[in-house]
Amino acid sequence: MKLPIDGARLQKEIDELSLISEQPAPVVTRVLFSEADLRGRDFVKNLFRQAGLAVREDAVGNIFARWEGRDKSAPALATGSHIDAIPNAGKYDGVVGVLGAIEAVRALQKTGFVPQRSIECIVFTAEEPTRFGLGCLGSRILAGTLSKDKIAGLRDRDGHDLEFWRKRAHLPGGDPAAARLAENTYASFVELHIEQGPILEQRNLAIGIVEKIAAPSSLRLQLTGVGGHAGAVLMPGRRDALLAGAEIALEVEKAALASGSPDTVATTGVFRIEPGAVNSVPCHATLEIDLRDTQLASRDAALKKIEAAAVEICHRRGIGLQLERVNVDAPAICDGALVQSVSGVCEELGLSFTKMISRAYHDTLFMARICPATMIFIPCRGGVSHRPDEYSSPQQIADGVAVLAGTLRRLVE
Amino acid sequence: MKLPIDGARLQKEIDELSLISEQPAPVVTRVLFSEADLRGRDFVKNLFRQAGLAVREDAVGNIFARWEGRDKSAPALATGSHIDAIPNAGKYDGVVGVLGAIEAVRALQKTGFVPQRSIECIVFTAEEPTRFGLGCLGSRILAGTLSKDKIAGLRDRDGHDLEFWRKRAHLPGGDPAAARLAENTYASFVELHIEQGPILEQRNLAIGIVEKIAAPSSLRLQLTGVGGHAGAVLMPGRRDALLAGAEIALEVEKAALASGSPDTVATTGVFRIEPGAVNSVPCHATLEIDLRDTQLASRDAALKKIEAAAVEICHRRGIGLQLERVNVDAPAICDGALVQSVSGVCEELGLSFTKMISRAYHDTLFMARICPATMIFIPCRGGVSHRPDEYSSPQQIADGVAVLAGTLRRLVE
Repeated sequence: MKLPIDGARLQKEIDELSLISEQPAPVVTRVLFSEADLRGRDFVKNLFRQAGLAVREDAVGNIFARWEGRDKSAPALATGSHIDAIPNAGKYDGVVGVLGAIEAVRALQKTGFVPQRSIECIVFTAEEPTRFGLGCLGSRILAGTLSKDKIAGLRDRDGHDLEFWRKRAHLPGGDPAAARLAENTYASFVELHIEQGPILEQRNLAIGIVEKIAAPSSLRLQLTGVGGHAGAVLMPGRRDALLAGAEIALEVEKAALASGSPDTVATTGVFRIEPGAVNSVPCHATLEIDLRDTQLASRDAALKKIEAAAVEICHRRGIGLQLERVNVDAPAICDGALVQSVSGVCEELGLSFTKMISRAYHDTLFMARICPATMIFIPCRGGVSHRPDEYSSPQQIADGVAVLAGTLRRLVE
Repeated sequence: MKLPIDGARLQKEIDELSLISEQPAPVVTRVLFSEADLRGRDFVKNLFRQAGLAVREDAVGNIFARWEGRDKSAPALATGSHIDAIPNAGKYDGVVGVLGAIEAVRALQKTGFVPQRSIECIVFTAEEPTRFGLGCLGSRILAGTLSKDKIAGLRDRDGHDLEFWRKRAHLPGGDPAAARLAENTYASFVELHIEQGPILEQRNLAIGIVEKIAAPSSLRLQLTGVGGHAGAVLMPGRRDALLAGAEIALEVEKAALASGSPDTVATTGVFRIEPGAVNSVPCHATLEIDLRDTQLASRDAALKKIEAAAVEICHRRGIGLQLERVNVDAPAICDGALVQSVSGVCEELGLSFTKMISRAYHDTLFMARICPATMIFIPCRGGVSHRPDEYSSPQQIADGVAVLAGTLRRLVE
């Protein structure tokens, strides 16, 4: 049975949420626990409540909205994504999987359907790494992959920890590590998301079903040189932190290009120098490097190459180096039976689809560690994401929501 | 006659002013027209008034404090420096020449001396380029080297112009270009300053007398690439603005090292990227480059080499380049008779001295275009400047003030 997806209402809600941003439209910026992020959370919680779902928040700000099933004791089926957005982003990344989940629930409700299992819609805290330099913070904690010490050691660029921001956001509970989910909390997890790559558009397909998520990793480097007056300190005596950082950034590119795998991608996405005055030799540089691959072997080889290059460069230039592996994660393998269920729904709805790899990471990377999981991808224009011109059409979004709703129905009947 | 310099009082005032900062002690940061800079200006204006000087401000915020001489119509003798400070700076750069001028005046007053010519102490607006990317803003305007259009085109990193900041600082007058000084306003100009280099300390000399100021120049580069998701955009398709910037920064270093002159210094002091998120390919980079030399020929050759490298790198990487020569200044030659007068004072006081080149630029670079000018340098520890650990001893400062006071007396008698 075709479900009554209200694509127009959903688009209106996506547009409304996009205006809750730290920067003027069309730019979306919602850094974790910023004013805009907190207002965005309220917007979403209200929609959940209007749909009759019971809303709770855990100690780290993951939001759970529950549609109680007939069998209250059975593990629930979960879906969801994130609404936080990096600086200068667009309005679909994450949001389609959150607002789409609400629309999927509403569509099921309209048909009079009552689920056997409960359905939970999750909004994950900080899928984006902007605040603490660590992506998927909420789902990492739910999956129990972060120690109490690691959580307590998180700092943003102003030196504030999670506890500081927890209080600002009025989050309940005391111990973030206690947000870890009990075993068998969820029967499965399915996340709807824009592809953030060009494959579906190029092949003119409506849906991608994710079989594997590429292995992400990230490094943070603190380079300490010696500052001084740009006019007075002659070149031979210099220990310029920026120049060491510049060499390292070029080695990051080289390591990806020379990895032997076309899937290795490496990016220096953060590069801050101090003091940052034109007439002052940079004394300090902070680099954050993102490195991913579909293959663990080539990813790890590139990682080691980058680390060795950083050590050599800093040694040669007399620069102090502090190197931290922020995260080095394995790839996620999605559940075969779940992938088959989603394929079945696509066939039922007459939507073209392919099975594929996700190069971007998502909260599913960590949910897959605690329950069977997969993702439903929809095309986005030009494969563009993390930019204000990110775009998926209302029809593409409605198709994705239809597949999500059909999958939820199939899995909770 | 030995003048009664009150070194202890002066040191106390230097310490007090250093606490008026955007950052906690020992860090001094006073960016032009920031809250701290405005409070610093008030502090200095009060000291001038306490010394009985008549204080006025011009349309761009240059402060003039006048000790009227017996011959009111004769061109005045000017001295002074600046109190603005780059981020993460120390407490002596500029300040010694401002507070030292006040102490020199007070010492002369104590002896009952009445000057024939008037003496004016000047606090120049924005010797540091932090706000608008252009150093010596106040003295450039006094010397008439900036067109009305160039002044109107100045923007800080938030897009605010000089007019915006003029209003915030409640500055008088309407036309910044009208702050240009009439011909023959000053008979001469003498600036007291810390050396910002190691020569005086290494040679154990009390005083340096500046014969020449190295030729400064600076470039601003805007690099525009294409952003995107750090996981999804494969390496061959990238147009990463940071990587182009990294290559350019290394070419800046290379151009200075290969110039043939040991005096060529080149620094990429500003390097900002957007969006600056670890999982996003940098779409934009802003670089500000400082290039100086005692020789115009090698400076200009290095400048051309850097510009050509930037063009080649951006072309090869598919990056849009906007290159602006913010300033390309000639060196200043100091007045021989004035240098002789200062030498005479040093001999009179029994202070060791040398004639020297200033590698750092100063407001004297522009004052030298409109009147005979020179500078009095004092040693600073390790040659360190533009850092919180910048230091000159109370005795070194008192010696500098004694030479300044003696020179003022000699020139206005």
